[in-house]
Amino acid sequence: MTTSVRVREVGPRDGLQAEAPLSPRDRIELVDQLSRCGFGTIEAVSFVSEKAVPAMAGAADVIAGIERVGGVQYFALVPNVRGAAAAMDAAVDGLTVTVSASETYSQKNTRRSVEDSIEEVSAIRAEVGDGVWIDAVISCAFGSPYEGDIAPSAVADLAARLRDCGASALTMADTTGMATPRRVRDVVEETGVDVGLHLHETRGTALVNAYAAIELGIQAFDTSVGGLGGSPFAAGAGGNLATEDLVHLLDDLGIESGVDLDRLLEVSAWLSQRLGRPLPSRVASAGPRSRLAPSEA
Amino acid sequence: MTTSVRVREVGPRDGLQAEAPLSPRDRIELVDQLSRCGFGTIEAVSFVSEKAVPAMAGAADVIAGIERVGGVQYFALVPNVRGAAAAMDAAVDGLTVTVSASETYSQKNTRRSVEDSIEEVSAIRAEVGDGVWIDAVISCAFGSPYEGDIAPSAVADLAARLRDCGASALTMADTTGMATPRRVRDVVEETGVDVGLHLHETRGTALVNAYAAIELGIQAFDTSVGGLGGSPFAAGAGGNLATEDLVHLLDDLGIESGVDLDRLLEVSAWLSQRLGRPLPSRVASAGPRSRLAPSEA
Repeated sequence: MTTSVRVREVGPRDGLQAEAPLSPRDRIELVDQLSRCGFGTIEAVSFVSEKAVPAMAGAADVIAGIERVGGVQYFALVPNVRGAAAAMDAAVDGLTVTVSASETYSQKNTRRSVEDSIEEVSAIRAEVGDGVWIDAVISCAFGSPYEGDIAPSAVADLAARLRDCGASALTMADTTGMATPRRVRDVVEETGVDVGLHLHETRGTALVNAYAAIELGIQAFDTSVGGLGGSPFAAGAGGNLATEDLVHLLDDLGIESGVDLDRLLEVSAWLSQRLGRPLPSRVASAGPRSRLAPSEA
Repeated sequence: MTTSVRVREVGPRDGLQAEAPLSPRDRIELVDQLSRCGFGTIEAVSFVSEKAVPAMAGAADVIAGIERVGGVQYFALVPNVRGAAAAMDAAVDGLTVTVSASETYSQKNTRRSVEDSIEEVSAIRAEVGDGVWIDAVISCAFGSPYEGDIAPSAVADLAARLRDCGASALTMADTTGMATPRRVRDVVEETGVDVGLHLHETRGTALVNAYAAIELGIQAFDTSVGGLGGSPFAAGAGGNLATEDLVHLLDDLGIESGVDLDRLLEVSAWLSQRLGRPLPSRVASAGPRSRLAPSEA
């Protein structure tokens, strides 16, 4: 089993995108609080249509307003060359781009074919030049709610093409919760372990999939504070793997993530208050296993 | 990895005990529906104080009212000799008794010391004779919300004493969600794999713990339809591992349980309607991964 894992916090982007919009000021506060938790990377914003995703409006203001903390890379999701140009103008540290392994999902979610999405990655690489880190996230990598299972070899072929088009790294996303430990193994056997995983809780399998992936040697995960998230467009999407729940597991397994769970739980409590409801994370609700019942006087 | 697993359905007992009481007629209907899903054992009732646990009132009426299906063992939880005698009068097929690994939990939950609980198991064995199956469930086997971690060797010693007192089988219960894959391994290394697990979702770890246990060779699990449950007395308890979620995982792993997931989902939908709210199981909400999005006309 691996001894350390990189956790990319995607709460400010994937976590909030389907929520009633928070103000840019609150989103800056969220990123700044997360910056003090020990993440190496925070996906802070997305440069998408403000009309389509109002919760992500004002991305440039958010990036301009945050306090950059040394050692933290601030990423933006970009859907196209125009978004990539805007993200570079805002001086983000890296980009995530999404390409689907499912043709139908691609058409429904982005009104673009898989082929056109691959082309867009090439165009984004050409736009931003060689020095910028681009993480290509493959959605529906473990199955599609439209086509069902997708051959792991097809996912690996797509990953290889995306590397050829300029992707610096690959992340396999379980967009609608179709991954299982077996599907994770099947995909990782084809792609190799040098990929990240982006897991969702649609069927309650995010943590068991992460555990199975760690056993295989996977060392990078996307998670969302509080377990918020899920595509506003994807049928049947559930929240992201909660950062608290993964870090709680990693801490118990003795796997280093650099993330301070106590600080993170404070951020989670703050965010819960801002959103006015409990967040999905079970560890956020119950507290870590080390938290004993209050003694009665 | 193991090729088959026994799933004991505890929804009619552990699942319902903290709910607003359902009528005996509804509880009979629930057990009868579950009897057609393929379980080898159903924990159908508990013979406890009706005043303390009103949702379990009328246990004898429930047992008398169900339609016994061949191949299904109908179990009752009993807290003491009196309950065991009542259960035998009702002609149940087996008993579960609970003894805590945590002294404080034992005192708070049963107003009895651990030693006295062990004595009670001996007394129950003497009452019912040698032919009756008694499963001793060790609560707080992976930690206590009062004392924190409990030494796995102490849990194994307790298990050995309970076998000496007449327990036919042992089940390790994670009463307040303190188990993790590492704690499961630590306990199973001491007890051996010939024990069952009873897992709770307090910290979202029930499924990952089950998976880790299966990798170790554990072959018996308690689960609750819909993920209902949690002790009405235990501080910080969460629902049981949902039967749907475990069977969905087992099916995908190719591990035989005998449980028909489609039928179970129908029971779960019926129970959700009876209780007037969605049940915690994520697979019950989202459907199995094989269920594709409806095609648009």
